[in-house]
Amino acid sequence: MTTLQKTELNGIDTTRMTETVQALEADPTLARFEFRNRNRWIQGGENRSTISGFYGAGREDDSRSEPFVFTNGEPPVLLGDNEGANPVEFLLHALAGCVTTTTVLHATARGIKIDRISTRLVGEIDLQGLLALDDSVPAGYKQIEIEMDIDADCSDEELDDLLQFSKAHSPTCNTVCRPVPLVLKRARRSQ
Amino acid sequence: MTTLQKTELNGIDTTRMTETVQALEADPTLARFEFRNRNRWIQGGENRSTISGFYGAGREDDSRSEPFVFTNGEPPVLLGDNEGANPVEFLLHALAGCVTTTTVLHATARGIKIDRISTRLVGEIDLQGLLALDDSVPAGYKQIEIEMDIDADCSDEELDDLLQFSKAHSPTCNTVCRPVPLVLKRARRSQ
Repeated sequence: MTTLQKTELNGIDTTRMTETVQALEADPTLARFEFRNRNRWIQGGENRSTISGFYGAGREDDSRSEPFVFTNGEPPVLLGDNEGANPVEFLLHALAGCVTTTTVLHATARGIKIDRISTRLVGEIDLQGLLALDDSVPAGYKQIEIEMDIDADCSDEELDDLLQFSKAHSPTCNTVCRPVPLVLKRARRSQ
Repeated sequence: MTTLQKTELNGIDTTRMTETVQALEADPTLARFEFRNRNRWIQGGENRSTISGFYGAGREDDSRSEPFVFTNGEPPVLLGDNEGANPVEFLLHALAGCVTTTTVLHATARGIKIDRISTRLVGEIDLQGLLALDDSVPAGYKQIEIEMDIDADCSDEELDDLLQFSKAHSPTCNTVCRPVPLVLKRARRSQ
């Protein structure tokens, strides 16, 4: 009988990472995940999300005893009272986290030790789109720029390669860069 | 001298809304906004964003005395410890909030009083993309479905028209549906 030694790099259990990848290679259906959110309007630009369960790795996840709760709001210049960050700011938070985690994951797979990562994101948007004042203006971000300050035990060339790989494989980056099918349907009125 | 009466619908000050739209019509450059986020990696799939200032309506906003702080994490099945919701879940939160606020805004412009809105979002994703196990699998969401339960003082036809208008004019919906240019650049190493 051998004793498995737990190995760790960048805060990731590399033994479990290898086992996870091997399990997905053996049965690719385990890679199908379904994430969910419920949101309730409060008033004006204020609304609140509750995030809890999801499906993945072939089963319903039950690891969260309490849901995560987040409030969207708007600043006064957009008719709110800063009840929370606004939705397009939360989108930048999702993007920052996803590109960071994707970078850490693939660095770990390559055996690169990361010393630090910090990112600064800037997204440009013209609100004539949201307000339907000019049909030629897209409602969404015109462009998003991410500047990543990263240091790791590898060369500049290896870092540049890692970052391009990360951009191409980050789920949130890909959701932003690619036209993703979005269905909005109305529930039947219940009264 | 006339006394301006404050009018309100759906928690939105309609006098201010009208004034805002008139100001943007007079000077469309006021509609240019720049939103920002700073994020710092902690370990593994854990990282933290700080959201504070932005530029819009022709100036730097100074309405937030304290920044908003949000933590991304991952569940155990994705090698984390539920330090926070994960980035693709935060993306669903952004989407829910944006489609809700856009609906409320345009309902208010149409004089429709909303009684309630709640949304349920489901996003399907195949993590073979993230893990680079199959190049034919996109890294991002395959599809996102939003079911909105809405009641308001208008007909079903008016609600359906409002929802389609909202989907087309929501900044986050549009950022997801449209291929948005995303630049990831590396800061010069500082040591």
